[in-house]
Amino acid sequence: MAVILDGKETAAKVVAELSAQAEGLKRKGINPTLALILVGSDEFSVRYVKMKAKRCEEAGVVAQLHHLETTTQKELIALIERLNDDPSVHGVMVQLPLPKGLDELATVEAISPEKDVDGLNPATLGKLLMGEECFPPAGVEAIMELLKRYQIEAEHRHWVVVGLSNIVGKPLLALLTNRKVSATGVHADNPHMARYAKEADVLVVDAAKKWAVTADMVKPGAVVLDNGNNYEGKKVYGDVDFDHVKDVASAITPVPGGIGPLLISMLIRNTLKAAAK
Amino acid sequence: MAVILDGKETAAKVVAELSAQAEGLKRKGINPTLALILVGSDEFSVRYVKMKAKRCEEAGVVAQLHHLETTTQKELIALIERLNDDPSVHGVMVQLPLPKGLDELATVEAISPEKDVDGLNPATLGKLLMGEECFPPAGVEAIMELLKRYQIEAEHRHWVVVGLSNIVGKPLLALLTNRKVSATGVHADNPHMARYAKEADVLVVDAAKKWAVTADMVKPGAVVLDNGNNYEGKKVYGDVDFDHVKDVASAITPVPGGIGPLLISMLIRNTLKAAAK
Repeated sequence: MAVILDGKETAAKVVAELSAQAEGLKRKGINPTLALILVGSDEFSVRYVKMKAKRCEEAGVVAQLHHLETTTQKELIALIERLNDDPSVHGVMVQLPLPKGLDELATVEAISPEKDVDGLNPATLGKLLMGEECFPPAGVEAIMELLKRYQIEAEHRHWVVVGLSNIVGKPLLALLTNRKVSATGVHADNPHMARYAKEADVLVVDAAKKWAVTADMVKPGAVVLDNGNNYEGKKVYGDVDFDHVKDVASAITPVPGGIGPLLISMLIRNTLKAAAK
Repeated sequence: MAVILDGKETAAKVVAELSAQAEGLKRKGINPTLALILVGSDEFSVRYVKMKAKRCEEAGVVAQLHHLETTTQKELIALIERLNDDPSVHGVMVQLPLPKGLDELATVEAISPEKDVDGLNPATLGKLLMGEECFPPAGVEAIMELLKRYQIEAEHRHWVVVGLSNIVGKPLLALLTNRKVSATGVHADNPHMARYAKEADVLVVDAAKKWAVTADMVKPGAVVLDNGNNYEGKKVYGDVDFDHVKDVASAITPVPGGIGPLLISMLIRNTLKAAAK
């Protein structure tokens, strides 16, 4: 039976530390502030941004919510540029996806890399690849943080990333090029996916598909990190068949309760880092 | 015996096509222009930049050479910004490495992504990772071009990249995340490098080490692309033991005469693309 990598418990520890950091900054007269930009009224996005704002406030970070029911590309860019120039704002994030008709790439490119605490701007991803200082996307930070908190060796291992989204799989591979590891990236629909997955010492699944990875695809003793978030009604399923894989792996994240709960705390941590500069 | 992927012959064909494109642009009143910035007097860099300028002129592209024997960071950035703003300049490149005391990252970040024809700016690398339009570094373009010209299927194959430099290995992995392939990145000094190399259908070696890859590390029938450039006196050696690997591989680049001769033509091609916009 694998060690369960408990994201909720880890997030609570992280948030306690972040609250102390936020207090420290306030004593120096810095009021850490994250601007959250939300466009449109997608139910999931509205709820998620509100939860981000709530968690920020709980950690002592000001959440400055900019909810635009409708907007134009020009207005959106102008808002981002205003926030880039506002010294009282330390982090700027835009909730994706944007409603149709708005250009996501142009929008995230407008975020100043110094304030890009959600790792959305291509310049941030490029720096991650180059091994330069930047704010990696929260999903990437959450994975590395879980390994660190559970004292699981990340280096000198073979990593396999199944599923290559712009927010987790690809930036994680970019980060790993700068570590002492070997790493394979494979799309979830690759006919040989199972064979590559089974070589992994550390297996990250970002497939956006319920139970894409089953027990037969996992090397005994592997560490398994599941970024899945597949809803069926109100119930959420991972990309990994947890109930069976937990008997093969040495450590595994549950879904829900694994990577997910850490995401917002990583965003807050990046905001505090930006504020401390 | 493997097919020899002849970079000289391929470059000659590419340059002939590019010359025709340059002619076409000139007929429309566009005079394609590449600004080449060289700082200091490193013998290799001076020679290489002069060769780039010569090849540009041969292809009908104006090479605007800015050779600064010494400079400050501020002056260098100011020059780049002036060239960014100059509508008669379509591409801007800075020969790396820069002399000590200058900040390479800050320098390449100053190059406008629209003119970053050598793929140096982190924003370009980030777009490559995201699968967005950009000018990939010449080494990456050269590899993909050789495969295309020799009609070697790049997709549905397993790629392995040995050695992860910022100019070839890493950006190539970034590009591959957007193709229908699986790809492993492994550092040349990884103790298991040979095992991963041997799984490759397409093996790219960017190890900066003479004969880092030997015949026993290559799967029979693999396609082998060697970015090595290791000088011993006046003689240059690849990262791959060509004489023996050629009997195992189905196709292989020689060194010299493989990827190298294509690099400048890829830079010219990117400049023409920028000029055509």
